[in-house]
Amino acid sequence: MTTTIFDFIGDQSGEWKVTLTATLKGDPISSVSHLTKVSSNLIQTEKGIWTLKGIVSNLRYTEKKDKDKLVSIQENLGRPNATLAAFIPIRKSEAWWNLAQDERRKIMENKSQHTHTGMKYLPAIARKLFHSRDIGEPFNFLTWFKYAPGDADAFEELLYTLRKTEEWTYVDREIDIRLKKKV
Amino acid sequence: MTTTIFDFIGDQSGEWKVTLTATLKGDPISSVSHLTKVSSNLIQTEKGIWTLKGIVSNLRYTEKKDKDKLVSIQENLGRPNATLAAFIPIRKSEAWWNLAQDERRKIMENKSQHTHTGMKYLPAIARKLFHSRDIGEPFNFLTWFKYAPGDADAFEELLYTLRKTEEWTYVDREIDIRLKKKV
Repeated sequence: MTTTIFDFIGDQSGEWKVTLTATLKGDPISSVSHLTKVSSNLIQTEKGIWTLKGIVSNLRYTEKKDKDKLVSIQENLGRPNATLAAFIPIRKSEAWWNLAQDERRKIMENKSQHTHTGMKYLPAIARKLFHSRDIGEPFNFLTWFKYAPGDADAFEELLYTLRKTEEWTYVDREIDIRLKKKV
Repeated sequence: MTTTIFDFIGDQSGEWKVTLTATLKGDPISSVSHLTKVSSNLIQTEKGIWTLKGIVSNLRYTEKKDKDKLVSIQENLGRPNATLAAFIPIRKSEAWWNLAQDERRKIMENKSQHTHTGMKYLPAIARKLFHSRDIGEPFNFLTWFKYAPGDADAFEELLYTLRKTEEWTYVDREIDIRLKKKV
């Protein structure tokens, strides 16, 4: 089961080179030049300059029809031409977490079209969500995107669309770290 | 944030005396005579004969109307006359986890009336759910009930009602440990 837990280690060397770090909301994070994603466990060790831990979990909002579609078109994150990545840790406000399931779902799907927006860019923009809130981490989610240089514009469009949704008004901390694969 | 993580330690001494251990489904658990619930962290240490770890999280299925009702009638688990308790670790099958959110919700609420059944017995039967699946524990949930001796029959009725629901057909491991407060 430990393969569902991952550490994202920001440091002075590593697998991915940081090309840009932007604090979009809330407190910034210490600046690092490299990021490495490693399979980990629940032990909170501070590796590198900082370590953010996330867990792969079940889908919390996706309904049957969308889940089937997602599974059929989802691209494996390991494809070799995806030399660009984005690591975007996010925290949502207490107001969000105090909402009931149906209220959160309504904001995410009916109003913000979260799943449909992401799906539109699949398989070009591969995305993976890691949960961090329940394990006492500073962020609630670590989002991880990988794409080929030719899909960089599509990626910007995807982010732009997500960030102007009602769902995003509940985001109170967001750091956008762009990465390039060391070759 | 560490107060959301708890260890349930089964041992030869402790806060609660075990009065009965029943394996209802799946593999049994080592027999212990006492159980202690302690505030913990994510470090997996084996204390006592066994340690089961769980995390308090947000409600995953409860809708607005029910959430408001729950909050208004929920009794504090610390009341002194609740000298009986039940610790029931549960695992659900892969078939359950492969369902989409709306399918799980439909089985839990529309068909199994999970929230309404629990609510009917509040505040007499205080209940708390701890999540374990995402942190690689052997069970998916640790359920914890506390009640006064006068409500013991109501508690049996609650369990009987939950166990014959469609939701319960997805439970593939369940241990029922009954406890009495040491006074």
